[in-house]
Amino acid sequence: MTGRLLVVGLGPGDRRQLTGEAEAAIAEAEAIYGYGPYLDRLPPRPCQSRHPSDNREEPTRAEAALRHAERGAIVALVSGGDPGVFAMAATVCDAIDKGPENWRAIDVVIVPGITAALAVAARVGAPLGDDFCVISLSDNLRPWPLVEERLRAAASAGFVLALYNPASRARPWQLASAFAALATVLPAETAVIFGRSIGREGERVSVTTLSLAGGEPADMATLVIVGSAETRIISRPGLSPLVYTPRARGRAVT
Amino acid sequence: MTGRLLVVGLGPGDRRQLTGEAEAAIAEAEAIYGYGPYLDRLPPRPCQSRHPSDNREEPTRAEAALRHAERGAIVALVSGGDPGVFAMAATVCDAIDKGPENWRAIDVVIVPGITAALAVAARVGAPLGDDFCVISLSDNLRPWPLVEERLRAAASAGFVLALYNPASRARPWQLASAFAALATVLPAETAVIFGRSIGREGERVSVTTLSLAGGEPADMATLVIVGSAETRIISRPGLSPLVYTPRARGRAVT
Repeated sequence: MTGRLLVVGLGPGDRRQLTGEAEAAIAEAEAIYGYGPYLDRLPPRPCQSRHPSDNREEPTRAEAALRHAERGAIVALVSGGDPGVFAMAATVCDAIDKGPENWRAIDVVIVPGITAALAVAARVGAPLGDDFCVISLSDNLRPWPLVEERLRAAASAGFVLALYNPASRARPWQLASAFAALATVLPAETAVIFGRSIGREGERVSVTTLSLAGGEPADMATLVIVGSAETRIISRPGLSPLVYTPRARGRAVT
Repeated sequence: MTGRLLVVGLGPGDRRQLTGEAEAAIAEAEAIYGYGPYLDRLPPRPCQSRHPSDNREEPTRAEAALRHAERGAIVALVSGGDPGVFAMAATVCDAIDKGPENWRAIDVVIVPGITAALAVAARVGAPLGDDFCVISLSDNLRPWPLVEERLRAAASAGFVLALYNPASRARPWQLASAFAALATVLPAETAVIFGRSIGREGERVSVTTLSLAGGEPADMATLVIVGSAETRIISRPGLSPLVYTPRARGRAVT
């Protein structure tokens, strides 16, 4: 008998941004695995075991959840935002790919969630209204020049950029390097948005420009959106500005 | 007295993929605007007026919703998926940008939703597990060469691609052209995923390769994911294959 592994997206953290499907998955699970602070967001339930782990232990966490499901249990593995965007879904697939044959018999269900790029964009208007790229600035597992090459390629082609994992204590310089690389291909006045803890205590959203963006604080919980040359800022008396990228033509190339 | 405009993401269509915040916004609204079939998904409520429109009337719909909110009402404008991804949020911002000064006083709230790329990715595993780009194949408002240039730039730089609006009755050839452009920079065996009507009647998900993808049917409700050279397919006896892109290094460039 083989169980079920539900990989569940919790969204940005505000309980109201959880989907009904995610709520149901969490209610159904006999065991919940996840990064400690994510588990703390969920009210405890009787007959449900909890298995918190550190955020540097993702492969180990995925393997533990798979071993638990393998024994026939319904197991939920929770993830911030959407599990498919720089989160646990790929880690689970990778563990199955490399793991014992019978892990391939486990019923794996990925439950999508609101990823940070969508939550931050919604707070300021529609900066992702045209084609956009989603890039992690983490160079823990890859060379930094690859990240910079992707940033320049995407910005040069007119994509708006959503930057995940912009900075951490161990990676303090990458965001400034990213802005410097982007400044070689984007105008200094390009809109840049910083968003953190959307819908939670301490929410912080700011709108600035590429030439001034280096002065803004950022950490692993921050999502940075860098506009394209088409991104516009609408000032509003008494209200925060709206930032949007028109869906229309972009730069003509013909 | 100026009202409130809630621009609400309905997700892919399965009611269970709606967030609590979206449910609350729809319940709160005195009037609901949207594409007819989206309004049909919502149960009628007393004292709530409904204003369906055609899907070719987006700017007109945004203006009508803004005029209604301007009179002091709480108005919801519903959007499939996420309103910020090729949907109504940018259209509303654009209308405010070009519209009368007092539209800037309207309290505009964007309520994010599960966009098609996340819903389709979740169905097959984690194909968006590495950096990815979100591109519309519609050339209604822009020259097709711009779209092809972006496709080639993104694929050459190693991004996974999520393609929105791949085909319609009026645009029957763009998807085949996109695959042809991508075939110049990606291996023939690159994984390609077609997803349609996720969580709804007639859901259809298929996994193929770039060299065979031209034979798959697609329309405006289809979302196509084109993997990178790193995307892997895990076959599972008795279960559908898992498709994922490892978070790790990508192609080294040093």
